[in-house]
Amino acid sequence: MHAIRWLLGHVGEIIVVVGSAEKSHTLENPFTAGERILMLRETIAAEKLPLERIIIVPVPDIEYNSLWVGYLETLLPPFQAVASRNPLVQRLFAEKGYAVLEPPLYQRDLISGVRIRKMMLEGRGWEDLVPKRVVEIVREISGIERIRKVVQTDEEL
Amino acid sequence: MHAIRWLLGHVGEIIVVVGSAEKSHTLENPFTAGERILMLRETIAAEKLPLERIIIVPVPDIEYNSLWVGYLETLLPPFQAVASRNPLVQRLFAEKGYAVLEPPLYQRDLISGVRIRKMMLEGRGWEDLVPKRVVEIVREISGIERIRKVVQTDEEL
Amino acid sequence: MHAIRWLLGHVGEIIVVVGSAEKSHTLENPFTAGERILMLRETIAAEKLPLERIIIVPVPDIEYNSLWVGYLETLLPPFQAVASRNPLVQRLFAEKGYAVLEPPLYQRDLISGVRIRKMMLEGRGWEDLVPKRVVEIVREISGIERIRKVVQTDEEL
Amino acid sequence: MHAIRWLLGHVGEIIVVVGSAEKSHTLENPFTAGERILMLRETIAAEKLPLERIIIVPVPDIEYNSLWVGYLETLLPPFQAVASRNPLVQRLFAEKGYAVLEPPLYQRDLISGVRIRKMMLEGRGWEDLVPKRVVEIVREISGIERIRKVVQTDEEL
Amino acid sequence: MHAIRWLLGHVGEIIVVVGSAEKSHTLENPFTAGERILMLRETIAAEKLPLERIIIVPVPDIEYNSLWVGYLETLLPPFQAVASRNPLVQRLFAEKGYAVLEPPLYQRDLISGVRIRKMMLEGRGWEDLVPKRVVEIVREISGIERIRKVVQTDEEL
Amino acid sequence: MHAIRWLLGHVGEIIVVVGSAEKSHTLENPFTAGERILMLRETIAAEKLPLERIIIVPVPDIEYNSLWVGYLETLLPPFQAVASRNPLVQRLFAEKGYAVLEPPLYQRDLISGVRIRKMMLEGRGWEDLVPKRVVEIVREISGIERIRKVVQTDEEL
Repeated sequence: MHAIRWLLGHVGEIIVVVGSAEKSHTLENPFTAGERILMLRETIAAEKLPLERIIIVPVPDIEYNSLWVGYLETLLPPFQAVASRNPLVQRLFAEKGYAVLEPPLYQRDLISGVRIRKMMLEGRGWEDLVPKRVVEIVREISGIERIRKVVQTDEEL
Repeated sequence: MHAIRWLLGHVGEIIVVVGSAEKSHTLENPFTAGERILMLRETIAAEKLPLERIIIVPVPDIEYNSLWVGYLETLLPPFQAVASRNPLVQRLFAEKGYAVLEPPLYQRDLISGVRIRKMMLEGRGWEDLVPKRVVEIVREISGIERIRKVVQTDEEL
Repeated sequence: MHAIRWLLGHVGEIIVVVGSAEKSHTLENPFTAGERILMLRETIAAEKLPLERIIIVPVPDIEYNSLWVGYLETLLPPFQAVASRNPLVQRLFAEKGYAVLEPPLYQRDLISGVRIRKMMLEGRGWEDLVPKRVVEIVREISGIERIRKVVQTDEEL
Repeated sequence: MHAIRWLLGHVGEIIVVVGSAEKSHTLENPFTAGERILMLRETIAAEKLPLERIIIVPVPDIEYNSLWVGYLETLLPPFQAVASRNPLVQRLFAEKGYAVLEPPLYQRDLISGVRIRKMMLEGRGWEDLVPKRVVEIVREISGIERIRKVVQTDEEL
Repeated sequence: MHAIRWLLGHVGEIIVVVGSAEKSHTLENPFTAGERILMLRETIAAEKLPLERIIIVPVPDIEYNSLWVGYLETLLPPFQAVASRNPLVQRLFAEKGYAVLEPPLYQRDLISGVRIRKMMLEGRGWEDLVPKRVVEIVREISGIERIRKVVQTDEEL
Repeated sequence: MHAIRWLLGHVGEIIVVVGSAEKSHTLENPFTAGERILMLRETIAAEKLPLERIIIVPVPDIEYNSLWVGYLETLLPPFQAVASRNPLVQRLFAEKGYAVLEPPLYQRDLISGVRIRKMMLEGRGWEDLVPKRVVEIVREISGIERIRKVVQTDEEL
């Protein structure tokens, strides 16, 4: 949300790519692309941000890193720059001549996907670190239970 | 646009699935998913329809018809009903227990994808049959020339 | 069933490959692989044939014809010969050195998939041309309605 | 075999899913799906269990965990419950409303795939931990040599 | 061969893309990619053309026309222009800014893949229309018999 | 290059398989298949080896280890033996009846892909361990910078 708010101050329209859209029910990606889109849209609406300037698109991974930019050019409406803190993503777009924006970090030691999923697993107070609507949606879909099941599986194998 | 306007009168939010998102540069799907999304969004904006109530999602085909509904349930935020005039789509969703809405036809003898692409090929007045922004976008991307090239290829092979 | 009965008289065990297992809800393959397996097993049981000598395996298509035999060698327990009336299948196995059996035709002018699906569409007496359990299963899954929907789709596009 | 015997006491028919059917020649899945099916069928026959009540199906993995249940519904004849000790599998079926059976553990400290493959590698007496027909089949296909080659490869890279 | 000879007069090195490399044993692509490469290399050698200036690469199709150029850029050493008479290929490369060369036609009414495969089927004198080494290779792999089997299959289905 | 030179002394023609052709921009495979082919061809030419006796083919991975040999038989012109030091590759070809050649090691403690990529990362003198043309190509494509970006990504996630 922090990155989206920052971007809304810099550009007219944002396309949010929900990557690895084929993944769910794993520790790294416990939620389906659709569930992730729901969390984003509901939080954007709850925070009164302009939903009409934000396009959210689920994008399944492809095997060719070298085709990633062309693949997004195919699936998304035309875009002029990429915003990411991921060095590989930055590099792939830079190699194709795109401008690269780097949204500022926001409380990185507190708020990171890895850390929050670990807290969810251990039942520690993750609820304060994500938007309220996300807490509610995770509950509605029994998300914590799902993450625990996934981890048990990995441990057993 | 006619179906979208009709749906906006019946439901709160619409998810528009831009199917066969992997296809482009063919007679049946001359435009990339991204170009199709651009046409939709620009026309929706030009007609002052509420963009914040409309989610447009590119979805590549899958090989299993029987998984189509589950695949959309994965990629899209939760939905309660499907709207389509395609009998196979209607059937697949009905088999999974979804309500099926059928948007009314709109000047079907005049306005159909097959007919308009044929008119584009023959240089006959297709411009009056699509929204103004679509005419402009097709021009910007030299869309007519693209369709003609594709057809020449099919004829030669 | 005729081919299976004939084969049971010639070999110890039969592996029935239910091909194109990814296809369903099309005119050529209206039923899922699982539904096709159900029809086969139930009819085999109803006709008191030895189910323990018959292995039925759903196999999705692959893109490489040239890998078809090696693909089946991977998915199936070892086999010594292939039985098929399909010239391409015969050829692919012969090129890899397999013996090829050709089950005799059985009332081909009456009984063929193409003809029976056509009769299903037109509501003509297809029920006498398939085993009784198949008639019942097709009813349980509203199979005729499914075929009709599929055909309407093809006609409209 | 222990789980199969337990299930035969609880249900009428069992479908055994041989998963990751595309995998072979790796440490975790040294044998092809066909070889695994052969081991299962031969042992079931040797132990005089009712082969006609057991359906064994090779199933290649798919990328979407969320489609796993629908994918099996497509490939398999209709089923009413799932039996598995894998928490992720249990979770995926529970989310789709299936009853979940949990076959009891059988000498888990002695008998586990990981442990037995390790013993195969080290040439320690794995033969007493698997059915006799499996020992014979592993020999016929030089299975131990295959596992050792695979491990050498992983070590070198 | 005519196009290759023409290109050798215009550029330093040629990359020959053997497309649809996954296809074989069909009427349109009876031969495997490897067999097609063999025919090309043997004929180039027989005609004393400079093999060291010609790179022949099998390339399987992809589903996204829009990624075709990027896909070739990934698999092939860098290239500066494309040579093709196929309007779609010309268009795809032109859209990405490549120069497009069009090799002159050579006895198109006599020599075309469609016509020669038809003559092969009918047993009419196709041997004079292809290089001598191709005639020999087609014989060694029983190519004519393969084409006939494929066509029988299509007719029966 | 050492293995190629050794092979040229033993066989008439060599097919060099550039495997994992879909991979690039990762630590293990930083370069695209096309870039790797370029390095090979340019070095072969610079060292005055007979380019016309060497076929270089990019080959994307497949999911089925058991189909690897058949897959190469499809994509490559006919071959009589395999040369590899990889035990899995040796095993897969041996199971299909191929002769297996093992090129001698060449300064393995100095020259290995893993070691050289590590030196590239750390800015230590990797340039002396690869052919001169490779040094130049890596520079032209800013290869060191690419590897560093990739590694940063892995560390952050």
